[in-house]
Parts: sequence; C-alpha cells; structure tokens
Amino acid sequence: MEKILSQIKKHKKFLITAHINPEGDAIGSQLAMKELLEKIGKKVVIVDNDPVPEHYKFLSSARFILNSPGKNLDFDAAVVLDCPTLKRIGRVNDLLTEDKFVINIDHHISNEKFGDARWVDPNASSAGEMVYMLFKRLGVKPSKDAALAMYIAILTDTGSFNYDNTTSRTHQIAGELMDYGIDPATVSEDIYERKEIIDIKFLGMVLATVKLNKTGEVAFLEIAKRMLKATHADAAKSEGFVNYARSINGVKVAVIFKEDLKKPGIINISFRSKGDVDVNKIASAFGGGGHMKASGCVIAGTLPGVKRKVMSKIEEVLGRGQNNNNR
Amino acid sequence: MEKILSQIKKHKKFLITAHINPEGDAIGSQLAMKELLEKIGKKVVIVDNDPVPEHYKFLSSARFILNSPGKNLDFDAAVVLDCPTLKRIGRVNDLLTEDKFVINIDHHISNEKFGDARWVDPNASSAGEMVYMLFKRLGVKPSKDAALAMYIAILTDTGSFNYDNTTSRTHQIAGELMDYGIDPATVSEDIYERKEIIDIKFLGMVLATVKLNKTGEVAFLEIAKRMLKATHADAAKSEGFVNYARSINGVKVAVIFKEDLKKPGIINISFRSKGDVDVNKIASAFGGGGHMKASGCVIAGTLPGVKRKVMSKIEEVLGRGQNNNNR
Repeated sequence: MEKILSQIKKHKKFLITAHINPEGDAIGSQLAMKELLEKIGKKVVIVDNDPVPEHYKFLSSARFILNSPGKNLDFDAAVVLDCPTLKRIGRVNDLLTEDKFVINIDHHISNEKFGDARWVDPNASSAGEMVYMLFKRLGVKPSKDAALAMYIAILTDTGSFNYDNTTSRTHQIAGELMDYGIDPATVSEDIYERKEIIDIKFLGMVLATVKLNKTGEVAFLEIAKRMLKATHADAAKSEGFVNYARSINGVKVAVIFKEDLKKPGIINISFRSKGDVDVNKIASAFGGGGHMKASGCVIAGTLPGVKRKVMSKIEEVLGRGQNNNNR
Repeated sequence: MEKILSQIKKHKKFLITAHINPEGDAIGSQLAMKELLEKIGKKVVIVDNDPVPEHYKFLSSARFILNSPGKNLDFDAAVVLDCPTLKRIGRVNDLLTEDKFVINIDHHISNEKFGDARWVDPNASSAGEMVYMLFKRLGVKPSKDAALAMYIAILTDTGSFNYDNTTSRTHQIAGELMDYGIDPATVSEDIYERKEIIDIKFLGMVLATVKLNKTGEVAFLEIAKRMLKATHADAAKSEGFVNYARSINGVKVAVIFKEDLKKPGIINISFRSKGDVDVNKIASAFGGGGHMKASGCVIAGTLPGVKRKVMSKIEEVLGRGQNNNNR
C-alpha cells in the first residue's frame, strides 16, 4: 500500500480502468478512486472496455466512465482495479504503452502481479474496500457519492455480506460508509429491483425445469431454445439462475445447461458447488475453468448428449472426493 | 435499558419467550438471552408457542426451546423478545400469571409498551442487536454459539443488511460478532440453502404467472389451486414470492393472490410497495393490515372477481397519491 501511494504521489495525470463487463465493484472502485485522486490534485480519466450496465447508471458520476476516449488522451500513470490479469481490461490495454506507469490494485488471490507497482490484498472483500482504505490512509473524506460507490462495490461483491470474502473489517467499513448518508433500502432497490417483467417470466420457466440426480447431490436446470424464443429474454440475464439449484438441501453440485440461439450445437454450462466439492475440476475437464465454487465451460453437442457427458464427469469427481475423505 | 437491567438483577428464575411462528430474530435473540442470563447466574427456560423451523435446527442450543413445558415450570420473571404486543406470544401468555414480572424487550416502533418493565428501541435492527448491547453493557463475552445466534437474528431481520432498519451500528455489531469465528458463507448456506426441489418448481410455476397493469406500476402473481395440487407444495413457503414482482423496474405495488386448498372460496393476498406507496391503506380497506411497505388481507370470492376488486382499490390509492403530490 505504501509503495503504490508513493507512486501515486509521483505522477500527475491518471487513467483509471477495470475489467471487461464491469459490475458493482469495478464501477464503484473506479468512481471512488477518481474522486480520491482528484482530491489530492491529480488529473483523472476513466476508460473501460464496456459501457456501464443500466442498473448502475443511477450513480451520477457513472457518466464520467468513457468507452471511446478519443485520441487526445493524456496520462502518465494507469490504475488498474479489480483485475487479476491485464488481459481482463480488454482493448484498454492498447492505451497502456511502454511509457505509462501501471499500478495494479486488486483483491483476487489469483492476481498475476502485473504492473510496475502493485497492492494485492486477498483479505479485502473487494477493490472498493481497498480504495476506502486509501481514503483513510490519506486522511481524505469521501463525498456522499464516493461513499455510495464504495458501499455498492462492497455490497455487490459480497452478495450482500453473505459470501466468504466478508470479514469483520468489511462490516466495519460498510458501517462507516453508511454514516455518509446512505439508505441501504434505496440502494438495494436501485440495484436489485430494476428487472424487466420478461426476466421474471424467463426465470419462472427455467426454474420449472429443475431436476435432481438419483442421490440428490446434483441439481440441474436447463435453458432450451424454445424458452429463449418464447420470452425473447437475454440469455446473459440467466447469470444467477444456477444458484436456485444450489439452494436445494443436500445438493453439492448445481449445473445449468444453456442452449444458444446464435450458436446452434453449442451448450454453455455453469457449475456451482456447495460445501467442499471443487467444480473447477469438472469445468477444466471440458476445457473450461473458474474457481472451486463457481466454474463454467462450453461443449459442442445436443442437450441430452452433453448432459450425459457432464453428469458422468460430475459423478466421477463426487466419487473421487469421497475416496479422498476415506484415506 | 438500565431499568430492565436492574429488574433482571432482582429476579432469579426466568422464562424467555418470543412471538408465534418464530423466525431468525425470535430464535436468535432468545438463545443469546438465555446464555446471557445463565452467565450472570440466573435459571432460565425458553418456551415458545410454535416449534423451531427446520432451517434453524442446526443451532445446537435450539433444542432448549420448549413448546410444551409441563406443569412444574418455576420462574418469577419473563423476558418477552421481539413482540409488539403480548398477544403475539400465543398460548405462552397463559403462563404469565399476575405474580410474574414481565420484561418487554423489542425493536418494533409499534410496540404497545406492555409489561412491568420495558426497553423498546426502534433504532435497533432486531431484538438480537439489543441482546448484544446487553452483553456489552454487562461486560459478558458471548460464546461462539450465542454470537452466531445474534448474527443470525441481525442477518435475517435486515434481509442481509438490505432493509432500512440496517444502521451503521448494525454493521459494527455484525463485524464484532464475526470475530467470534463466524463464517458468513456457511451461515448463509445453513439458513437459505435448505430448500426442497418442489419449492423451486413451485416458485417457477408462480413466477411464470407474472403480469403488469397497463401503466406498469402494479405487478401481479397468482397461486392457483392447480399449482398446489401439481406440486404438493406448502403455500406457506410462498412468503417471499411477491418480492419478485416488486423487483420489476417501475413497479410501485406488487401483489400475490393465493388460493387455499383447505378453504375454497377464500383468497389470501399479500402486498409489497416500492418507493412511497402505502400498501397498508390497501389491505386495511379489505379488513387486513400491516405496514406501509408490506401488508396483507383475506377476501372471499373467486380469483378473477377478487383481482378486479383489489385492482380497483390499488388504482384508487395510486391515484390519490398523485393528487397529494400535486397539492
């Protein structure tokens, strides 16, 4: 932390960026970082690969996030937030020419330690939590807007303080941020209650497909082409659906199989685990990847054929897990 | 607080109780209160009207909650937790004879100030938060079990820190409780991820019925008899379903209409509001009640007939709200 602070002091003009398809932590940590740097006299521009999602546009400073910055971009250092690798910033990488000093601020344990200076804290719930620690260390008071941005970063990255990246410090900081005038119910409505009716119908159709394997340890959902055609729903909105399958008592592995209207013959698959099954192993076996508790892969084939293949791999991994326990 | 502490000191044998159909806060605050009283040398018994719900039975001390205490119950004071009125403790009220000293500890603003001593703090997120303040005030360290009980009280009563009863103190306390060795992801799995497959299928069928009124301000869901018959689902498990209707962008009032297999010709209705519409007004018009943001009523009639009546009342209230704003 001290290393990156001394580098921040040395430079004058900053570019801030974060990962492709930015979510709450990427958006929130960037907006707060912008305010912090400006309050200590720096020039700042934020450039992201992708636009701000609709449900974060209520953040007034979100309008400062550029996607096509033009050619006159002038900066000497870049702050890369919430990215385990530089690849994650997408085409913004093209702007980081040899002469730019790159500062890497991240909370992922898998961070590849890129950049000229880095502060990686896997004990932080989120990049937003880390930016708040910079505010405190520098003795800078955030505005209500910046406090809200960091609160949202923490709220969304911890699944409302339910994931295991939540620590006692996370709560301490959330409490301090609330003192800047944040109303948690309004924030929650702003972020989580902006769905379209078709999203709810689509969720209903998908949940109705839920099935268990014989032992009750594996739960399946599927998104068939006909559902996408009937609802015109965006398949990208099915991101959290697999968690419903995971929430069934006794389930160790939850899987969702998604057909793709644009790519017939291709099945997208997401895995989630409960307890200590490593679903990264399962996805990796099919050329995919992820973490122990959440992973994904893509397999060519028909829905029934792919299901059979995946099921047999899951049972193998569940079986192996049991053998390990018996040793 | 000081008043009830001096009363607690005066008495020796305590009965602890909370409201009918106990949820996280009722269960958690009672278990923690039991430990606190025992640690300062009191005899304690917990008696509730209803059994502990399945998903809280993982709390090891939950086995101490009695429903049929027998006749040899010996106590001189009762602590009533999380109850706005004494009626809410159900048949446990019969045990509170004239000679018993009743202590009322609650966080509901609507508390009717019953009992011989009372501590009502509407700024507390939950009764659990209040019991934690008693631990602190008395300088008693909770065990991990009691810390977990209070953490669960706070977590569930604040909707994972998303409701407007969450304050900066709530987060402060949640953080302190976590330091007793609580793993938030495990707690979350224990409480929220013990569903039955039929609950997920049932949710799917109900969500597929979602509809909006013409202005997009009112969203409806329905539970028809055929869904209950097809899934054999417990209608009581539909408690949170109406929130999905509320989560649609632009919706101000969400409603769920429930047929009842046991009571044909009766429709149960729950309302939720987003923003500043008062759904208590709507439920009250049909003899029901509740709060501004959540209310309910029961109406005799057919599903289509009841829907028409309710819709016309909702549009009246939405219309009146607009007139008020124009003044």
